Amino acid sequence: MKQDAPMQNELMSPDKLEETLRDVGAERYHIHHPFHKLMNAGDLTKGQMQAWALNRYCYQAIIPRKDAIVISKSDDPAFRREWRKRIIDHDGDDDSEGGVARWLQLAASLGLDPDVVKTKSLALPATRFAVNAYLDVVTNSSLLVAVASSLTEMFSPVAIGERVPAMLARYDYITEDTLAYFTPRLHQAPRDAEFALDYVKTWADTPDKQQSVINVLITKCDILWAQLDALHHAYVEPGHIPPGAFQPQDE
Amino acid sequence: MKQDAPMQNELMSPDKLEETLRDVGAERYHIHHPFHKLMNAGDLTKGQMQAWALNRYCYQAIIPRKDAIVISKSDDPAFRREWRKRIIDHDGDDDSEGGVARWLQLAASLGLDPDVVKTKSLALPATRFAVNAYLDVVTNSSLLVAVASSLTEMFSPVAIGERVPAMLARYDYITEDTLAYFTPRLHQAPRDAEFALDYVKTWADTPDKQQSVINVLITKCDILWAQLDALHHAYVEPGHIPPGAFQPQDE
Repeated sequence: MKQDAPMQNELMSPDKLEETLRDVGAERYHIHHPFHKLMNAGDLTKGQMQAWALNRYCYQAIIPRKDAIVISKSDDPAFRREWRKRIIDHDGDDDSEGGVARWLQLAASLGLDPDVVKTKSLALPATRFAVNAYLDVVTNSSLLVAVASSLTEMFSPVAIGERVPAMLARYDYITEDTLAYFTPRLHQAPRDAEFALDYVKTWADTPDKQQSVINVLITKCDILWAQLDALHHAYVEPGHIPPGAFQPQDE
Repeated sequence: MKQDAPMQNELMSPDKLEETLRDVGAERYHIHHPFHKLMNAGDLTKGQMQAWALNRYCYQAIIPRKDAIVISKSDDPAFRREWRKRIIDHDGDDDSEGGVARWLQLAASLGLDPDVVKTKSLALPATRFAVNAYLDVVTNSSLLVAVASSLTEMFSPVAIGERVPAMLARYDYITEDTLAYFTPRLHQAPRDAEFALDYVKTWADTPDKQQSVINVLITKCDILWAQLDALHHAYVEPGHIPPGAFQPQDE
């Protein structure tokens, strides 16, 4: 049994469920990871920042595929229309380029070749395994659990609100243009998180379903945390870059 | 593109293919990982050894499921009979307990509760993601590629041959009973590897198929390497055990 996974056998009120989900984030969201703390403190080299950008691209790149899987599980046109906004946000439309393209601009602005980033071939294997674990969870779970796996977005505006000013202040090569990805996320993520949280509070109406949404949020936090563990191991501690992965040039 | 993945567009002879596959192992098999070197040098604490045993259990536990997926892909009773030996080796029969049970005995002999090990709940999330990546690769590939993913067994007798005497010599709490898992592996792995290698040399008869078997062996090496990276990060470098994972008591 997980050492600190909350276990519960009684039906919680929707608000108590929300509180429990927020507790999971307070304890396990990757904003508390040492790699994020180094980033926000201005202590990453440019090579480490590049490693972060090209690995996290793998995560950004599967988000719209993940959201398409969620849509494929719903019978309700209104739900599907609402969730479709997420795909548009990431893939863009005639008027806007979308988050995936903006992440590639972030990578390019850090000195990476976006065509190489797109191949994902220099990413850490552990990044690919964690990212695919997210696709697996969403593929193999109910609509309710798939929706709940997105609830880390409840915690992301705080992370972005800390990160963007810290990065602008502490890295002279990072500009507002570099970080253009994050600006729309500040209103998209709360809008999306609110919808998903309402959905989960409404439909997690048995103790088992409530436990399953808590568990998947823990799993999702594990997926994000494992990506930063892999970055920290390979690029903060010397000598641990695995065979075939990105080699920073500045060190 | 992978920095050091061999790429080839011409058909190789079967022996040249074997040589290329052996080169992949020489470069990427986890016997070269710092965590294995620490283990063989006698430099792991008992807590680190426990962390290794309980995480690697997750890998041992999926091997017979992986082998069942391989069998499910074959139309040939003779192939299926041959491959079935692997499931018997791991799951046991009326006369023999099998490798999974032997691994639990190894864990128990190191002071872990086998019932807790079996739940996998204290394993690192990165271990679970890597192990599931192996199931995914085998599930989603051709029989040829699924067979080729087992070829790391070509390299395992050398690893075991190094590890067993080193562990017996350098850790006073490790006995031959502790390591009973490894003894049958010394003849099972070469028998299995020879069959799989012959199969791959026979059926990888186009450049594309040859490339696909090389690629999957690289991926399999990445899967094994990522498991040791995760152990090294969490249990060799201080302060990096992720939330919810095993906490050694001896440190």
